Amino acid sequence: MYPQLEPELEEKATKVRLLTSTGTGTKSPAHSEAKKPAPAPKWKRALLRHVPVFQWLPAYNLEWGIDDFIAGITLGLTIIPESIACALLAGLPVRYGLCSAFIGPLIYLIFGSIDKVIIGPTSLVALVSVQFTVGRPIEFAFLLTFLSGIVDIIMGSLRMGCIFEFISMPVIKAFSSATAVLVIESQIKVLLGIKYLVPGLINSVSMLISQIHKANMADLAMGVFAISFLLLIGLLDRVANNEKRHKALRICCRYLSTSRNTLIVLIAGIFSYICLCYREQLPYTLSKNSLSSFPNFTLPVFTIETPERTYSFWQIMRELNVGIVVIPIVGILTNISIGKLTPKGMVDTNHELFTVGLCNIFGACVQAMPSSGAFSRYAISTASGLRTPMANLYLGIVVLLALGYLSPWFNYIPEASLAAILICSLYTLLDFKLPVRLWRESKRDFGNWLLCFVVCVLFGVEVGLLVSIIVTAMHLLFLWARPEILVKIQALDDMQFISVVPGNGIYFPAINYLRERVLKACTRADFKITVVIDGHKITGLDYTAAQGISKLSTDLCRNSDAASSALLILYRFPTHLQHLIDLTENLVFCDSEAKVKEFLTQESLRNGYINLKEHIRASIDLGYKIEIE
Amino acid sequence: MYPQLEPELEEKATKVRLLTSTGTGTKSPAHSEAKKPAPAPKWKRALLRHVPVFQWLPAYNLEWGIDDFIAGITLGLTIIPESIACALLAGLPVRYGLCSAFIGPLIYLIFGSIDKVIIGPTSLVALVSVQFTVGRPIEFAFLLTFLSGIVDIIMGSLRMGCIFEFISMPVIKAFSSATAVLVIESQIKVLLGIKYLVPGLINSVSMLISQIHKANMADLAMGVFAISFLLLIGLLDRVANNEKRHKALRICCRYLSTSRNTLIVLIAGIFSYICLCYREQLPYTLSKNSLSSFPNFTLPVFTIETPERTYSFWQIMRELNVGIVVIPIVGILTNISIGKLTPKGMVDTNHELFTVGLCNIFGACVQAMPSSGAFSRYAISTASGLRTPMANLYLGIVVLLALGYLSPWFNYIPEASLAAILICSLYTLLDFKLPVRLWRESKRDFGNWLLCFVVCVLFGVEVGLLVSIIVTAMHLLFLWARPEILVKIQALDDMQFISVVPGNGIYFPAINYLRERVLKACTRADFKITVVIDGHKITGLDYTAAQGISKLSTDLCRNSDAASSALLILYRFPTHLQHLIDLTENLVFCDSEAKVKEFLTQESLRNGYINLKEHIRASIDLGYKIEIE
Repeated sequence: MYPQLEPELEEKATKVRLLTSTGTGTKSPAHSEAKKPAPAPKWKRALLRHVPVFQWLPAYNLEWGIDDFIAGITLGLTIIPESIACALLAGLPVRYGLCSAFIGPLIYLIFGSIDKVIIGPTSLVALVSVQFTVGRPIEFAFLLTFLSGIVDIIMGSLRMGCIFEFISMPVIKAFSSATAVLVIESQIKVLLGIKYLVPGLINSVSMLISQIHKANMADLAMGVFAISFLLLIGLLDRVANNEKRHKALRICCRYLSTSRNTLIVLIAGIFSYICLCYREQLPYTLSKNSLSSFPNFTLPVFTIETPERTYSFWQIMRELNVGIVVIPIVGILTNISIGKLTPKGMVDTNHELFTVGLCNIFGACVQAMPSSGAFSRYAISTASGLRTPMANLYLGIVVLLALGYLSPWFNYIPEASLAAILICSLYTLLDFKLPVRLWRESKRDFGNWLLCFVVCVLFGVEVGLLVSIIVTAMHLLFLWARPEILVKIQALDDMQFISVVPGNGIYFPAINYLRERVLKACTRADFKITVVIDGHKITGLDYTAAQGISKLSTDLCRNSDAASSALLILYRFPTHLQHLIDLTENLVFCDSEAKVKEFLTQESLRNGYINLKEHIRASIDLGYKIEIE
Repeated sequence: MYPQLEPELEEKATKVRLLTSTGTGTKSPAHSEAKKPAPAPKWKRALLRHVPVFQWLPAYNLEWGIDDFIAGITLGLTIIPESIACALLAGLPVRYGLCSAFIGPLIYLIFGSIDKVIIGPTSLVALVSVQFTVGRPIEFAFLLTFLSGIVDIIMGSLRMGCIFEFISMPVIKAFSSATAVLVIESQIKVLLGIKYLVPGLINSVSMLISQIHKANMADLAMGVFAISFLLLIGLLDRVANNEKRHKALRICCRYLSTSRNTLIVLIAGIFSYICLCYREQLPYTLSKNSLSSFPNFTLPVFTIETPERTYSFWQIMRELNVGIVVIPIVGILTNISIGKLTPKGMVDTNHELFTVGLCNIFGACVQAMPSSGAFSRYAISTASGLRTPMANLYLGIVVLLALGYLSPWFNYIPEASLAAILICSLYTLLDFKLPVRLWRESKRDFGNWLLCFVVCVLFGVEVGLLVSIIVTAMHLLFLWARPEILVKIQALDDMQFISVVPGNGIYFPAINYLRERVLKACTRADFKITVVIDGHKITGLDYTAAQGISKLSTDLCRNSDAASSALLILYRFPTHLQHLIDLTENLVFCDSEAKVKEFLTQESLRNGYINLKEHIRASIDLGYKIEIE
């Protein structure tokens, strides 16, 4: 017989007692368990948990060092053009993107818990933050970074990480697809060399169409070249995967592929530089405003003065509005999603909130834009063989050096090549296979996807995210109001009864529904039938529901004539929930089928639903006296 | 064997097939079912459902008529002093209370679905509405009535009645206890003859203490007399219940008891009138501003002009604020609670919203304050033997006559006697036995009770209600994030496996928790153990959760060495949910225990967890080839 599962303390339960692994000589779990060291003291475990650098640093070795160095340099070269592009997307001068690309990794090196997350500016965060900073003094951006860091840390301290569990996968996917659509749309105008700024996708598209005649062919040519280059070089990755014989060729292909962003920027930049040696002006737009200097470490200012007006801290807060909550949520979402892809598969969301919060607070002190992990960098860190977060150190140094010495050269990078980088990196986020699958398999999930996508695209990603979370939460609440309850007539030894099997725990929103379903079924039988509620699936019950069950027995009593009040049998109810239910005269608990049968026979006798022969047999069986009318 | 419950169409299932009721000659359900008439056409059923007067009117007879007449007159005499008291509590002249006490019952007579609900002003609604109308022109009150009627109807049309299911019983009880505390506190100052108006219980109590020296002994004496009288006459009800022999005495006691409110008002009024014949002024306060006239039927004005300023409709809306949503909710709550006490026990909340909405809209046209059913009137309608809503007609006529002809006499009623009526009727709502019981039996429900009570008393009943609904909803959501999942090591024929039994449906908020629990258990066994997820309790699964289960199998693969990837068996998963889960190489579905055993043996063989003898035996059993190393 398949053993019945009984509640047991988990700690006790998960202790492995592998009985059968005694015979053949393979290494058994028991063996490997014996190797485990004694548990560390509490403070040490807390330190290891909160400052993960101590977990891997003691075991750090040269081999890891070399791998991390190569990965760090590769990532550094990738993150530089990406940061520049994100800064432009966020409407900021390029240096502020680079600032957040050097401080984030250095903090994450120490506190980061997910190996392959590389903190830095992302197009998603840039897209959201531009709405709160556009047309405002640049200090708004740093304050937004600072305040979202503070919100991150507050959420982490209050252990609010669990709210991220209320974002379902279709919502996350719709959200990232919508972001990709919005960013790609915003970059198309850069590719075309058209400049305007209007809010909303529809406005922007109609503006683009109306201004299409102003398109600059040189920008477009540069953009198309860059996109083609990126896509072609991206294909080398496949070559690397298929190439088994020539190791040098494989490594070469892989490095070309992972550093394609850097290559296109280099090629386009050098081309522009050479052209400018011969001509005064270029036909396409270059990125500008890059000054070469290391960032200063200063606290962000909390009162902003402009020639026109002075913003007090509260005014700034009011202008930044929901931004200071949306940016942290959007940022952390990516980190959690990446964390779930790693072998460990588990993310301590509260710790992650704390770490990203620190990255943003320190970021604000070096004039950085808000930052988080990014899928594009996760892919590159995997491909470039990153071992530990130590790679962040080399990456940070590369970015810092670029910031200090290379900045003037960034002025030679064509904007269209940066737009091409963004478009190519976001193209992978566009996932339209999922909604097709959802449509086939789960209409409700498809509905959530569609709602989130449409609202994100039309009214902004933060509105879409909020609406979708509320709608999915409402559905979960509704499941408590209308749980699965099977109500049917059953027979046991020819004695009929109404069998009621609630699927979930019964909490207060469901009790009226249960009551109505039972009463409706009873009405059909004129309340002359026993009701058996089978509680073996019930995991929880609250006071309101318990009272409702007692009241149900009273209802059965009141509705039937005094002589034959219907009995309510509560069968297999969890023992710890039984005391909540008030006993009434026609309510009984049963834990065995035999007992149910006894009660049913008794009721049948009392109400005369049984013929005389049955009557006598049943009465003798149960030891009752026989009263023949 | 107790038969396994299988899903079946409910309509089909609830059709009664009583097989055994063939023997003895008692009336069987089948017999009474045969008497039922053929189902009415659709339009007729809709009419009967939406206009319940047609349900009982055709069968109306003289006996019912007499009972209803007596009950109607008794209720009319009770509702008059109560309405006056409520109008004073709401800070309105008395006639506006009476206006809503005559129009409500007349509408409810036609559309009302709960027999014993008597619509009229209630202290609860008065207490809430006074916050939105105090210190404002009187037209605000009528507009509040009108707009809450509109909101009622909108909520009913959108079938939003189910939101009332999210108010748990501890919350309702705490809410009504808090209301009672607030009203009693507000009436104590009337008993003492002190006049002030401050918001909040704490302010009010400290003001009362600081002004206690101004107390008027004559008011206090009148109040104490009225309370004592009401309590004493109330005791006659018990006498009536115990008196079995003398029918006349029983009836007399019951009528004295049910009309005690009228009696005290009559006694106190006549006393005041006689006193005023001899003296110029009375030492205690009388109610005032009663003018004798029938109400006009006019639409409420939507622009209010006062000597100081003019309020546009939007300004009024802004001033009334949440009031136009809170008043309908608070009003309907009482009706639903009463409905659950009636024999039918079922309330069509949407229909009730519609009916109360009509009462309020028409009420606003005759200058009435917001109205709803009240527990005090339910008790009296039960005691006075009401049969059908026809009693509402007599009640309405009595109130209308009082409004037209008796109003000048209301000026002789002492305010203290009205305060006494409110205090005595609300005293029964104070239920402090419930929190004691909750504390013993369900700490969480006690917490909800306490939260609701404290917030209601300190920050207002509408804030308390809202906060409590949100907190209880958050708990329900949390139950989806942390469902009951039993994880333990089990053995089947000496082959061990990790048994995972999720208690509820697994939806997206729970999937990470499930994954973490399983991975944690697997880590202890170095991922060399088969995992069996027993899904027999699972009622639902969404796409995110299904993907998570697939991912779990990949996790098991990735974490164990390539040679021995742990198997994930999904046992007894509902068939209609299986297609959602992506199949991976180490994920299998099983519906029988034998199949599970086969998989376990196979795994044991493959991973060498079984000794040689077992190995051979098992292999022969299952027909596998034996490969001895």
